[in-house]
Amino acid sequence: MKPLVNIIQKQSGAAFTLKKNDILTVIDPMGEQVSDMVLFNAEDHKEKLSSGKSLDFEECMLLTKGHYLWSNRSRKMIEILEDTNGRNDFLLAPCSPETFKIMYNYKEEHPSCLGNLQQHLKPFGIGVDDIPTAFNIFMNVQFDLNGKLSVHPPTSKAGDYIRLQAQMDLLVGLTACSAEDSNGGTFKPIHYHIETEPQHIKRKRS
Amino acid sequence: MKPLVNIIQKQSGAAFTLKKNDILTVIDPMGEQVSDMVLFNAEDHKEKLSSGKSLDFEECMLLTKGHYLWSNRSRKMIEILEDTNGRNDFLLAPCSPETFKIMYNYKEEHPSCLGNLQQHLKPFGIGVDDIPTAFNIFMNVQFDLNGKLSVHPPTSKAGDYIRLQAQMDLLVGLTACSAEDSNGGTFKPIHYHIETEPQHIKRKRS
Repeated sequence: MKPLVNIIQKQSGAAFTLKKNDILTVIDPMGEQVSDMVLFNAEDHKEKLSSGKSLDFEECMLLTKGHYLWSNRSRKMIEILEDTNGRNDFLLAPCSPETFKIMYNYKEEHPSCLGNLQQHLKPFGIGVDDIPTAFNIFMNVQFDLNGKLSVHPPTSKAGDYIRLQAQMDLLVGLTACSAEDSNGGTFKPIHYHIETEPQHIKRKRS
Repeated sequence: MKPLVNIIQKQSGAAFTLKKNDILTVIDPMGEQVSDMVLFNAEDHKEKLSSGKSLDFEECMLLTKGHYLWSNRSRKMIEILEDTNGRNDFLLAPCSPETFKIMYNYKEEHPSCLGNLQQHLKPFGIGVDDIPTAFNIFMNVQFDLNGKLSVHPPTSKAGDYIRLQAQMDLLVGLTACSAEDSNGGTFKPIHYHIETEPQHIKRKRS
């Protein structure tokens, strides 16, 4: 049985739980779209995704297939099993209402990944101040050896996906990015599906 | 009057408050030593240093003179006024007991920046889970265009310093780093001093 595909509408978000060993697949259905992902220990939300710990343990800034994302308590949260695009960002915080005011000089309110994460994580008791720097799937942040950063459209094509396996029970926040700058001026949905353990074990055996 | 110099003994830490506009100078007295710094809004500890927000707003990974460090609420926390060495890191989380177990295969307990920050921030009501990725003063993390990270001895010479001006009332955690890997296998103290507003205004006028 193919797992059910969930749709995150453009400039929107979602939150859901994974059991240890569940496999989450995040798909860019149209190409050139970014999805910000944050992780919390489902049993204790004080343990959460840490870019600083992940970059330290993986000794790399560009995390892809074979790498783990780590928590602030130095534990593995999720493993990247597959990554058909291969470029993700783990440097920049999710775009927030202030991103659009300060960096892009917007006068009015603008949807943002932080706002969407906040909205969907609130029912789980998580406040906006507790949302960490996200793992920005498909986000294309280029850097030079002087450390200068620039945001470019993703290299992902329609159907590119990343497949991640939970290393502990997780609460996940996930978005379809709201920033023009991250997705080449377009707004698109993000798709995801979850394989629970019996499903993917069966798949392995068949 | 020269401001009083405070000494952070080797493999140790400190925590203290700054008023808005106070100037903090962090000095490497012997050369090749790292000092991890974390910042909190003194009035509301839920607002704190964010590497993800700082890298985003400054559009740069290598922050030095002229750059600001930003909070998770997208506000400027501190400005770098001077930086005689010019190389700092804002990618890696403070070394923790697990760093030494997982990365260096230590069997016994090892002093760590996270442990020292935890000890000194505890009296202010801050728990270890709430300590963010630090701004690692003098830390020399090299990277290549594939994102590969490697830690090298600091380029700082005896007497090199960084001078930072508080943009809000701050609680500061500061260490003399405990990791062999960050300081070329040696353990050394860190010095710091604070100029309160009347002092540095007087200094400007004289």
